[in-house]
Amino acid sequence: MPVVHIYMFEGRTDDQKSAMAQGVTKAISEAAGIPDSATTIVIHDTKRSDWAQGGVMASDS
Amino acid sequence: MPVVHIYMFEGRTDDQKSAMAQGVTKAISEAAGIPDSATTIVIHDTKRSDWAQGGVMASDS
Amino acid sequence: MPVVHIYMFEGRTDDQKSAMAQGVTKAISEAAGIPDSATTIVIHDTKRSDWAQGGVMASDS
Amino acid sequence: MPVVHIYMFEGRTDDQKSAMAQGVTKAISEAAGIPDSATTIVIHDTKRSDWAQGGVMASDS
Amino acid sequence: MPVVHIYMFEGRTDDQKSAMAQGVTKAISEAAGIPDSATTIVIHDTKRSDWAQGGVMASDS
Amino acid sequence: MPVVHIYMFEGRTDDQKSAMAQGVTKAISEAAGIPDSATTIVIHDTKRSDWAQGGVMASDS
Repeated sequence: MPVVHIYMFEGRTDDQKSAMAQGVTKAISEAAGIPDSATTIVIHDTKRSDWAQGGVMASDS
Repeated sequence: MPVVHIYMFEGRTDDQKSAMAQGVTKAISEAAGIPDSATTIVIHDTKRSDWAQGGVMASDS
Repeated sequence: MPVVHIYMFEGRTDDQKSAMAQGVTKAISEAAGIPDSATTIVIHDTKRSDWAQGGVMASDS
Repeated sequence: MPVVHIYMFEGRTDDQKSAMAQGVTKAISEAAGIPDSATTIVIHDTKRSDWAQGGVMASDS
Repeated sequence: MPVVHIYMFEGRTDDQKSAMAQGVTKAISEAAGIPDSATTIVIHDTKRSDWAQGGVMASDS
Repeated sequence: MPVVHIYMFEGRTDDQKSAMAQGVTKAISEAAGIPDSATTIVIHDTKRSDWAQGGVMASDS
């Protein structure tokens, strides 16, 4: 506890993902008083052709 | 707001996904009084070998 | 198949949700060639105090 | 009903996934009194480089 | 690892949920060779008025 | 983009949730080079009686 699912466009490097996981974990622990070790993060790379805003695919905008 | 996650079998074309995103966005805006621009849709292509109904994988049925 | 999760602010009436489910189901069936009966929709009412955009809770904006 | 999403490291074989779907479906039906046929399971294979525990990517631990 | 989200109608007792969590955890460990302790399960009670199949709310069917 | 779902035990105050959303948004923007305004966060309060680790409900441990 907690479990965090992050959905974002593919293309981030492993180093960026690692830095993101560290930062998000720390932000949760500081704000909510939860030990770092308790936080699970799952990153879901998503293609622009699978993501729409306002009915328009991100690959078309 | 809103955020919509759609899980379905892989195999739809980009044109089908685009039409689906347009239609779903419009359906939400008409029913719930939400501007089109506010709706985010994430499509999750799923293999038949990762989907089960009644304990039977879709790839086996 | 498919499974659709819709996350939105609480406050829509049952009639609005029903119209939304009908419209979303029809939009998917028309765009992707899937029978209406195959689509499952789960609506997740969310409090404005549990939703943030740009780091600001919707209840504060 | 119900819908089950399982997020786990990639690498399980189709046979393992099939056995898992059967077992999970049976466990739900026995505990909750739901017919097997009603349960939908979606398995989400996840790379170790997309999964973090305690701020550390599983690919680095 | 793994993380399991179960969406189902509200109304199960705590005893049923506990038996379900035990059974699902055991089914995953047996099929996929994962220690029981590694599995996280989150149960999401859902109102029939927030669940639709084939465009019809479960509360209306 | 991105969309973040955070599942955690209920009981955090609105101030804690607000600080968490700010921190998580900033962590993502710094690590992944994404403007703060693009990040949507949905917090899902979960009862201990709906959360299991190792097959044991958090309300029993």
